[in-house]
Amino acid sequence: MIVPRLIERKRDGAELTADEWTELINAYAQNRVPDYQMSALLMACYFSGLSTTEMTALTEAMLLSGSRFDLSHLKQARIDKHSMGGVGDKTSLILAPLISCLGIAVPMISGRGLGHTGGTLDKLESIPGFRTGLSIKDSIAQIDRIGCAMVGQTAEIAPADKKIYALRDATSTVEVVQLIAASIMSKKLAESLTGLVLDVKGGSGSFLPDLKRELVLAQAMISLGVAHNCPVVALITAMDRPLGFACGNSIEVAECIDAMHGKGPEDLMTVTYALGAEMLILGGVADTHVSAHAMMKEAISSGKAAAKFEEIIHAQHGDARVVQDTDRLPQAKLQAAYKAPRSGFITRVEPRAIGHGIIALGGGRTTMEDVVDPSVGFHITAKPGMEVRAGDVIATVFAWDQGGADIGLSVLERAIAIGDKPEPFLPIISHRITTAGVEVLPS
Amino acid sequence: MIVPRLIERKRDGAELTADEWTELINAYAQNRVPDYQMSALLMACYFSGLSTTEMTALTEAMLLSGSRFDLSHLKQARIDKHSMGGVGDKTSLILAPLISCLGIAVPMISGRGLGHTGGTLDKLESIPGFRTGLSIKDSIAQIDRIGCAMVGQTAEIAPADKKIYALRDATSTVEVVQLIAASIMSKKLAESLTGLVLDVKGGSGSFLPDLKRELVLAQAMISLGVAHNCPVVALITAMDRPLGFACGNSIEVAECIDAMHGKGPEDLMTVTYALGAEMLILGGVADTHVSAHAMMKEAISSGKAAAKFEEIIHAQHGDARVVQDTDRLPQAKLQAAYKAPRSGFITRVEPRAIGHGIIALGGGRTTMEDVVDPSVGFHITAKPGMEVRAGDVIATVFAWDQGGADIGLSVLERAIAIGDKPEPFLPIISHRITTAGVEVLPS
Repeated sequence: MIVPRLIERKRDGAELTADEWTELINAYAQNRVPDYQMSALLMACYFSGLSTTEMTALTEAMLLSGSRFDLSHLKQARIDKHSMGGVGDKTSLILAPLISCLGIAVPMISGRGLGHTGGTLDKLESIPGFRTGLSIKDSIAQIDRIGCAMVGQTAEIAPADKKIYALRDATSTVEVVQLIAASIMSKKLAESLTGLVLDVKGGSGSFLPDLKRELVLAQAMISLGVAHNCPVVALITAMDRPLGFACGNSIEVAECIDAMHGKGPEDLMTVTYALGAEMLILGGVADTHVSAHAMMKEAISSGKAAAKFEEIIHAQHGDARVVQDTDRLPQAKLQAAYKAPRSGFITRVEPRAIGHGIIALGGGRTTMEDVVDPSVGFHITAKPGMEVRAGDVIATVFAWDQGGADIGLSVLERAIAIGDKPEPFLPIISHRITTAGVEVLPS
Repeated sequence: MIVPRLIERKRDGAELTADEWTELINAYAQNRVPDYQMSALLMACYFSGLSTTEMTALTEAMLLSGSRFDLSHLKQARIDKHSMGGVGDKTSLILAPLISCLGIAVPMISGRGLGHTGGTLDKLESIPGFRTGLSIKDSIAQIDRIGCAMVGQTAEIAPADKKIYALRDATSTVEVVQLIAASIMSKKLAESLTGLVLDVKGGSGSFLPDLKRELVLAQAMISLGVAHNCPVVALITAMDRPLGFACGNSIEVAECIDAMHGKGPEDLMTVTYALGAEMLILGGVADTHVSAHAMMKEAISSGKAAAKFEEIIHAQHGDARVVQDTDRLPQAKLQAAYKAPRSGFITRVEPRAIGHGIIALGGGRTTMEDVVDPSVGFHITAKPGMEVRAGDVIATVFAWDQGGADIGLSVLERAIAIGDKPEPFLPIISHRITTAGVEVLPS
């Protein structure tokens, strides 16, 4: 393997063989290929793309660079859900207990927030005592016992992906659809799943605000699933506005707990139930979307989902009493109401502005080393299309001091637009993508 | 300066500012920007190209990263010639003494052979004792004294270029016209020239076998010269066959010495005189090509050029007696004649095959660490268009043993094609490019 020749061929639009990708990734993982050659190759991939064969070989090599959750002894189906990330995007926290209490094993490996999007681990860690840094062995034992674990990626899972991802981040080669798909799937396939549901975010607040590329990404991940005997179903859901009302860490956990008590915002529940139904059908527990919805609603109204969340929190050393009393979650010192400056229709609630606002309040990260304040954020009841009157309270800032509250209010002023008439916004769920193709959903 | 943002902008086809290039190159030269970011940027440049402003800023920054030959105290014009490299391409060895004996200072910094092309330093070092590793100070003193120095690039000249060039070589980002131009000109401008003549090679044996890109390269270097007050004239000369008869190291030196005694092959002299005329006109020593040719022929027939070569060799610690007796140059043990396998017309003498053949005989380099055998090579009298009869000796292999001779003969068999009728070949000099534009020369 002569690396400059591989780079040259990729640069000139040729396809590398599966064996070449395997050898290259192995050599890179073992520090036998320098970063500067890998980054040049990644930039060539940005321009030349990767074929399905190349992407599959890359995914396989990254997967095999590390350890896997061996869950093959379980009788249950093993289903996870992965989201491309967004603002107020908190469905994982509801789905993990909700789906695992219905007899499916949910080995959920999540990430931290970065840039304008939040991360499930940061949210979970706002629960006092909650530990996300479980070893593979402890995670497996917990899944055996209670059917679910909500943990972070350990150094044991796909280390080659970790190394390549850090390099892509430093060299502006993140936005390559096939590299994104390979990175996600190399980690998800390490969970030895029998099925995966993808929440591909669309709209201005998503990482890929372009429907065509979102569809390509979904199809790329589906084809990687097929190659590894793991059926994948993807939904494209709206991220042109935050999901639900709460945007932050502990306030999102509180909203999820409310949701498990049957009091979740409508848009959040629509997306949660849609993703959950796909998980239940993939897992063979429900036959139809209608029966899946009925099962999930029963699990919530009976208190089974909330009880499972308590069980998970308890198993991971957190204070499970938060499920009955959300005041036990970290609370910001100040709340400042934001009033509609004029009457009219909400035309825009910009997720990126809100996400960056959370960072400005100390609740997000610009580098992985940043420490997150779990209590700050926004609660935004305004939704595009809603009619408001001047002076109506349409959002609340959660901050630590008046300075923070002022920043938060000015963020809301920029992020929320009010016009004379409603403007179009994305349907909450627009597309369903399976191996059978792309289905445009009725809005 | 946030490097990933610069990479992203270049990737997306935007232009970086001159200040950004300057800051980036300075930071890279001081190891404050890692190789992996620079290589990703270079690959983005491969796809997005560089504007003239960007190329000028890059050249300037690389030039200023090192020391310069300060020759401003000289009364004479200071003219150098640079070739893009080829097989049998030996005009530098003739031009340095020939032009400096006519009253122009020639501060000539040359390179080593790499890949299929030979290098002036390797050829010079086949002269027993010849030293090319002079310091800037010693080179200046020698130019003051005898008007010429023939040396290698020292670590003091354009170190940023050296670092970037090594990175490009390892990451398949060599073939970017603007980066090639910037790299050459950052070194040439360090010679404080008052003019530069470029020999841009065309045809299958050149680095850029594509006329359009050759013209772009020539024009890029001319515009960099203009920006630094150094007039540049470029000729495009044929490299679809070797130049002259000799291809190797010591045998090329012998051919150059023959040329200085008035016995050079016709094609070699045509190119040498054309380049030399441009140097004399740029240096203000000749007014017209006709008078320049007359001056050069007189310098050769009078022995002045050969005497100047002796002076240069002597100054650089070499055995100057080789100029009167080329048998003092390293001699290969064996010579094997290659006979035309059939009658017909020579249709092809492939320079790349010959160049790689020299490497196979031990006379070239695949890495900069390889040691070169100065005596091996080929003497090929066959030229495209020439009629031959089966059994005519059309080339000779110079080797160390029968195995080497056999390799050489099989290389010649592959490299030299004979057909039933002549086939087209490139005119020996096809284009002349100046600030005034591109002139197509009559063939």
